[in-house]
Amino acid sequence: MADALDLVLRNARVATAADTFVCDIGVRGGRIALLGEGLPAGKREIDIAGRTVTPGGVDAHCHLDQPMEGPAKMADDFLTGTRSAACGGTTTVIPFAAQMKGQSLEAAVLDYHGRAEGKASVDYAFHLIVSDPTPTVLAKELPALIAQGYTSFKVYMTYDDLKLDDGQVLDVLDVARTHGALAMIHAENADCIEWLTKRLEAAGRTAPRWHAHARPMLVEREATHRAIALSELVDVPILIVHVSGREAIEQIRWARAQGLPVFAETCPQYLFLTAEDLGIDDSYQGARCVCSPPPRDKANQQRIWEGLADGLFTVFSSDHAPFRFEDPQGKKPGGQEVPFRHIPNGIPGLETRLALLYSEGVLGGRITLQKFVELTATNPAKAYGLHPRKGTIAVGSDADLVVWDERELTVRNERLHHAVDYTPYEGTPLKAWPGLTLLRGEVVWDGQRFTGAAGRGRFLPCGTPSLLPRRT
Amino acid sequence: MADALDLVLRNARVATAADTFVCDIGVRGGRIALLGEGLPAGKREIDIAGRTVTPGGVDAHCHLDQPMEGPAKMADDFLTGTRSAACGGTTTVIPFAAQMKGQSLEAAVLDYHGRAEGKASVDYAFHLIVSDPTPTVLAKELPALIAQGYTSFKVYMTYDDLKLDDGQVLDVLDVARTHGALAMIHAENADCIEWLTKRLEAAGRTAPRWHAHARPMLVEREATHRAIALSELVDVPILIVHVSGREAIEQIRWARAQGLPVFAETCPQYLFLTAEDLGIDDSYQGARCVCSPPPRDKANQQRIWEGLADGLFTVFSSDHAPFRFEDPQGKKPGGQEVPFRHIPNGIPGLETRLALLYSEGVLGGRITLQKFVELTATNPAKAYGLHPRKGTIAVGSDADLVVWDERELTVRNERLHHAVDYTPYEGTPLKAWPGLTLLRGEVVWDGQRFTGAAGRGRFLPCGTPSLLPRRT
Amino acid sequence: MADALDLVLRNARVATAADTFVCDIGVRGGRIALLGEGLPAGKREIDIAGRTVTPGGVDAHCHLDQPMEGPAKMADDFLTGTRSAACGGTTTVIPFAAQMKGQSLEAAVLDYHGRAEGKASVDYAFHLIVSDPTPTVLAKELPALIAQGYTSFKVYMTYDDLKLDDGQVLDVLDVARTHGALAMIHAENADCIEWLTKRLEAAGRTAPRWHAHARPMLVEREATHRAIALSELVDVPILIVHVSGREAIEQIRWARAQGLPVFAETCPQYLFLTAEDLGIDDSYQGARCVCSPPPRDKANQQRIWEGLADGLFTVFSSDHAPFRFEDPQGKKPGGQEVPFRHIPNGIPGLETRLALLYSEGVLGGRITLQKFVELTATNPAKAYGLHPRKGTIAVGSDADLVVWDERELTVRNERLHHAVDYTPYEGTPLKAWPGLTLLRGEVVWDGQRFTGAAGRGRFLPCGTPSLLPRRT
Amino acid sequence: MADALDLVLRNARVATAADTFVCDIGVRGGRIALLGEGLPAGKREIDIAGRTVTPGGVDAHCHLDQPMEGPAKMADDFLTGTRSAACGGTTTVIPFAAQMKGQSLEAAVLDYHGRAEGKASVDYAFHLIVSDPTPTVLAKELPALIAQGYTSFKVYMTYDDLKLDDGQVLDVLDVARTHGALAMIHAENADCIEWLTKRLEAAGRTAPRWHAHARPMLVEREATHRAIALSELVDVPILIVHVSGREAIEQIRWARAQGLPVFAETCPQYLFLTAEDLGIDDSYQGARCVCSPPPRDKANQQRIWEGLADGLFTVFSSDHAPFRFEDPQGKKPGGQEVPFRHIPNGIPGLETRLALLYSEGVLGGRITLQKFVELTATNPAKAYGLHPRKGTIAVGSDADLVVWDERELTVRNERLHHAVDYTPYEGTPLKAWPGLTLLRGEVVWDGQRFTGAAGRGRFLPCGTPSLLPRRT
Repeated sequence: MADALDLVLRNARVATAADTFVCDIGVRGGRIALLGEGLPAGKREIDIAGRTVTPGGVDAHCHLDQPMEGPAKMADDFLTGTRSAACGGTTTVIPFAAQMKGQSLEAAVLDYHGRAEGKASVDYAFHLIVSDPTPTVLAKELPALIAQGYTSFKVYMTYDDLKLDDGQVLDVLDVARTHGALAMIHAENADCIEWLTKRLEAAGRTAPRWHAHARPMLVEREATHRAIALSELVDVPILIVHVSGREAIEQIRWARAQGLPVFAETCPQYLFLTAEDLGIDDSYQGARCVCSPPPRDKANQQRIWEGLADGLFTVFSSDHAPFRFEDPQGKKPGGQEVPFRHIPNGIPGLETRLALLYSEGVLGGRITLQKFVELTATNPAKAYGLHPRKGTIAVGSDADLVVWDERELTVRNERLHHAVDYTPYEGTPLKAWPGLTLLRGEVVWDGQRFTGAAGRGRFLPCGTPSLLPRRT
Repeated sequence: MADALDLVLRNARVATAADTFVCDIGVRGGRIALLGEGLPAGKREIDIAGRTVTPGGVDAHCHLDQPMEGPAKMADDFLTGTRSAACGGTTTVIPFAAQMKGQSLEAAVLDYHGRAEGKASVDYAFHLIVSDPTPTVLAKELPALIAQGYTSFKVYMTYDDLKLDDGQVLDVLDVARTHGALAMIHAENADCIEWLTKRLEAAGRTAPRWHAHARPMLVEREATHRAIALSELVDVPILIVHVSGREAIEQIRWARAQGLPVFAETCPQYLFLTAEDLGIDDSYQGARCVCSPPPRDKANQQRIWEGLADGLFTVFSSDHAPFRFEDPQGKKPGGQEVPFRHIPNGIPGLETRLALLYSEGVLGGRITLQKFVELTATNPAKAYGLHPRKGTIAVGSDADLVVWDERELTVRNERLHHAVDYTPYEGTPLKAWPGLTLLRGEVVWDGQRFTGAAGRGRFLPCGTPSLLPRRT
Repeated sequence: MADALDLVLRNARVATAADTFVCDIGVRGGRIALLGEGLPAGKREIDIAGRTVTPGGVDAHCHLDQPMEGPAKMADDFLTGTRSAACGGTTTVIPFAAQMKGQSLEAAVLDYHGRAEGKASVDYAFHLIVSDPTPTVLAKELPALIAQGYTSFKVYMTYDDLKLDDGQVLDVLDVARTHGALAMIHAENADCIEWLTKRLEAAGRTAPRWHAHARPMLVEREATHRAIALSELVDVPILIVHVSGREAIEQIRWARAQGLPVFAETCPQYLFLTAEDLGIDDSYQGARCVCSPPPRDKANQQRIWEGLADGLFTVFSSDHAPFRFEDPQGKKPGGQEVPFRHIPNGIPGLETRLALLYSEGVLGGRITLQKFVELTATNPAKAYGLHPRKGTIAVGSDADLVVWDERELTVRNERLHHAVDYTPYEGTPLKAWPGLTLLRGEVVWDGQRFTGAAGRGRFLPCGTPSLLPRRT
Repeated sequence: MADALDLVLRNARVATAADTFVCDIGVRGGRIALLGEGLPAGKREIDIAGRTVTPGGVDAHCHLDQPMEGPAKMADDFLTGTRSAACGGTTTVIPFAAQMKGQSLEAAVLDYHGRAEGKASVDYAFHLIVSDPTPTVLAKELPALIAQGYTSFKVYMTYDDLKLDDGQVLDVLDVARTHGALAMIHAENADCIEWLTKRLEAAGRTAPRWHAHARPMLVEREATHRAIALSELVDVPILIVHVSGREAIEQIRWARAQGLPVFAETCPQYLFLTAEDLGIDDSYQGARCVCSPPPRDKANQQRIWEGLADGLFTVFSSDHAPFRFEDPQGKKPGGQEVPFRHIPNGIPGLETRLALLYSEGVLGGRITLQKFVELTATNPAKAYGLHPRKGTIAVGSDADLVVWDERELTVRNERLHHAVDYTPYEGTPLKAWPGLTLLRGEVVWDGQRFTGAAGRGRFLPCGTPSLLPRRT
């Protein structure tokens, strides 16, 4: 046994996506070198005292410092965003290098590296957002970027500045198929939303709560069916992001029953919020919870929980999209209470994602601890080509770890580390919070304070997605 | 680091249900003590040389030396059966202590322990078969036996000597619910089978191939729907055993989509055999493949593969039910070619189960290596309360391991170690076979020879099933 | 144009299952001889004045003077039952000649003819109830009776004195197939009901409202699926009687989508009552509404309405099963408030069936007038081999007619003509009631009084069911 | 009984959508005045001799002399088209007044009236095709035209010159809802078709048979789901035209099961042709059968038959779209064998529609005679507001009648009366053909010859669709 261990965590109740077992964890060079009983002394030692240790979270859907058109600006950049992640137990983030229409993808990636540089305190990879799939993008840029480790991209079926038509989606899916990348799809029908929005506006219904009426479940269901059909035509796996309720779930179940490789993601807002959080009157307070798709109702929350438990969902992400409420660059563009159409879409959630699911899911008896690990770490790492380096606790993996303190507490924005001036989960009772977060063997959150450092987070080139068996 | 390791396996490509990683495996006292890089020397060492190592198989559905009514007698007892298991990579078997009508369950268990005593060369637990749920059985025997580690039982909806009516099934399920046991259900409609059988007999259709006509898919589909309804009424999880094709799968998918905890098992015969293996003419050769439900067709095989890949199936078992072909106690009762009704049901499969799925599933690109481990070891261990002692490769687990030799070979009965004079898979090409099987750190199969010993297998009392989250 | 018309109805708005048209109706010899404009004078004339005229109702599911085991006795015999039918617009009833176990079917039919003889004031045919399918019944009696005009029979999957096991159901279905009869199936799982009933009783839950808890929707769903499977095995059409809600409907929709000839019936109680009508506390008043399956809830009522509108249901019947409330032979056996298990099952409905559906269905905008005719007259006549003699308004058909008075009224038992001392629809507002009922051209209800006569109703031998295309 | 009858048809076996009955039919002033036994003598008499008489066919989907962009020109104008209709038993056609982009709808209607003027020999109404839903069209023209009797319009989800985007479809559906019109939808995904077509072209796959590959079933399924979602959003009935197979059917079944008013049409080509009729090699012969959606396979034909039998389909139309094969304005634009993209879409079928369905459907035992009448006459008349004037045999209805000669014959184009130089059903054996067609009491086809006259057909303003109950 060569060199001494840098760190030994004693007496950990280690959870992977398959198993729970008690052992010591030995770390060397930032990686897990040994798992076992009675490990030799390390240079540093931490007594876990039987607490549960899960892999550091992989948040595969979050937006940080993403360039935007118009007045809005994201509140979190890589500095505050990754700090917030670390304090909530997430050690890998995969935000989006977003192509603006007319921009080259390479330029978008280059720009985005500049934004991360020196700021990230947890590791990070990039998804690409393809908003302008020109022949050059399709034939050259995408293949080249995939080869360089950008193996996933997102396409939008809605949002004026981002949406692709069905033919463009097919083009992008075809590149994914040819080059082994994974496409994420935001599935909502843009025309329906626009049509409803105009009607609502014509009727003077512009308060935040009408946002939910402009994007009813069927608008998501339709686009989900369409996305499935497009992927079926191209014969390529897809991942439907932020699924919000029953009707979309039924489409995905149908696809699975046909043997189609359709994966799905959901987010905390579809478990913990409802459309009523957008307001039950014309108050502007609900602007805080404006996101798309909008939260649904209690019955849909229950369907989402079932989908998490039974394998319908592959990934649980935050869809962190940080805008301040009291801010002309945030939920009040120009300082005004604007019609819902103009409210920046998105809510913060990077820091609360794991604790919410651990508390209500695992400790609430809705999902197993293994399922928690799978959804929040292992599967995202597999889906985006970061496994087994990330997403598990195994020999050779990065020593990204969360130690759980099981205790009663309450979500308060003042305790969070993002740059947003609110959390949609304010007041939500929790049963646990990370007591320690380690990034490659370094404590970046000690249960009280952020102890990481900007610039210590590394960029991770992604490999081939590994959710599916290899066709040989 | 206390005592020296008894055994170190060097340079293993370890697969769990979650991950694949390369490390050394250190064994002490029959359990896995260390997983890591550069382990200290053990008393013994084996160089795995990068080969894949999976957990020893858990075959949760097999019949060994089970008392039977009538002339038939199982060819394998615990001696030959567990030897065969070891040589095929299976280190835990869970055969059935079967209650005869009129018999007490305790007597059945006692008798069955006698049959295993001194003969088993791999570890074993018992399922119970409840064929006579008297008030005493329900109120006393079952609860007592569950408390003693017999936490699963099987009920039959068909077979004259075993079948329960729906009310009896409800009674047994209710015990399962109250005492936290798991019920396995053989789902075929007895009346339909009898009705069809009589018609076929009246038409002189008694050759083995008519067995499949007496048990068409709808007979299984109906009973599957009924079993689901019964479990829904009682509000208790069930596991449907040996699911054979699309129509039953659709019922189970439907149940899952309702949020019902309905688990399912399938077997090699539904992937590798079809009804044609029962014969395409009146030859008696097909008697070898008479089992229930019967194998279906190629299209159904494909649905089964999809169900394995996408999580529909929780467990992959052999349903090993060993009868010799040329034997008055086997497929030719009294030495005669009898009408299909009288052919003992069942085929051997303990030894070939893992290699078939590894070859065609993993190496054939149909399922991931993780899914293989989950289906053949981790999930069966969880379903029946043996995890994490069995079913995984983790610190603290028993050192039950299979090292895979990936090479071209062909199934030949002469190479198998059961006491049956045929295998239904004769001639099937394989891409791998266990190169080593270890039971609690001891090599019981060295790739050439059985190296275990009768009596070294231990009885395993089972705990609470752990597939589902704990309701807290 | 030969003989003068016996009767001319002037200016009728005639509705068939296909069309609505305005014309005069000429009747000769009890049959419709002419439909047209400006008919010559008849011996009698009635000015319809543009009111809607529909075919006389065919109530294909009602119980009259049916021999029963135990203390209960039906309140309506053919005298009061058919009078009640006439006053409610029904001109053909098809009650059940029920075989008692041990009895020959022929004896049951003979006995039942004796009960009808001289009493019926509307026409009638008989369904058979097969409760004891002995070899003689199957091979001789049933074929002979079918040939004589008893072309439909009902089998029960529940009720101790009536239920058949699955094998017996298959036997009976096979006779239906061979001889071109139609089997009606009462689909509820007997074992589940018994199991639940015992549990409820053990808990002291014996008030009428617990009847609904003893027969939850899943108990009906399961038996519906099973009935479908049995008919599929035999390859014969079936008709599921008194479908009560969503879960059973879904099974039938599934069957239809597979191309299976599965027909379905529903009844007023599943549109107008809910389980709350059985009581919300332990009051015995709810015994009035004890019937099986029990009424469900509002959401299920809506599913039933949808099924009526979209063709899922073929037939709308009353399932009239008349027991007096304050009566030792009725809902209070021995004069006592008995546990729900002992309450005679059934509610009266012959007289209110048409007006309820016409009011809420047609005038309430839920179904078309054509659909009303189809469900209440044309389809029942086709299903049971009475069409086109019965069930429509067409040249050559019996002049069985209902003229509708559209006006506000309220259901009051005092206005009804059955021998039951209550109606479950007491107080229900209606928008119409028959203003005239004609049986073969004779007015049997004039809007105020019963004007028919006992003994004028004729027995109708039934022909081959004609819902399905003829296989040629 | 006022005036003498103009015509009496003696001894007819009359079929409506509800009933079959034998009677004489008395015609006065072109309308059915009397149905009955022993009618008085008419000015003319025809002895039907017990043959079956059905309502004159209503072909609710056919294209005649429709202005087109590009070189293609329809072979049939109102002269040849309606003559062909009459000879095949169809007495009402509803072709399309098609708006060209940039054109006003009123202009399109005016132009189309000019094309019909003096030429039609059967009655006709117009559907509108809305290809350019400008604010004026939506707010003024459509409402005005609906009020004038153009109560149905078709929208296309594909074809470059016709297709609407989803927002435009919503706009048009909203007009339908507000003004009580019925929208027909051509459901295929345009982008998918274009994407596939380009790929096929790039691969040199341009022969007619590749047309089917460019429009696979999923392309139709997706658009069907989308159309349903759009109608659900607007809360308005729709009718999906020319449904071709299982996957689209499943979407429609799903919609119905949700209680959505989604109607569907199918056509002879989906019962009698398969994709192989487009060619199995690169021969151009298959251009004759190029239509959209393309015919599928035998299994899909079976699903279509089931849908006809069980009520899934409301309407059976020809989708007659006549292009000559050997014609520079037909299937060989410019006289050339062109890539499939440029082959005019459509096949002739007006004259053969009824005989094909009567022969194989009714006489082949697949559907009842009532269902035939419903699908080919009654329902189309109801769907488009022409009932009860058209589509049935009832007092007051137009005396549009078909008398069926049941005899063996074979489809030969030389016997047909359209202007197309082929029929896709050449050689198909039939079991019946109209022996007489009467339009408003005039014989327009005597079984041998067309006996009608150009200009005798009248334009029919349409009323409100009457398939659904009136919301009151």
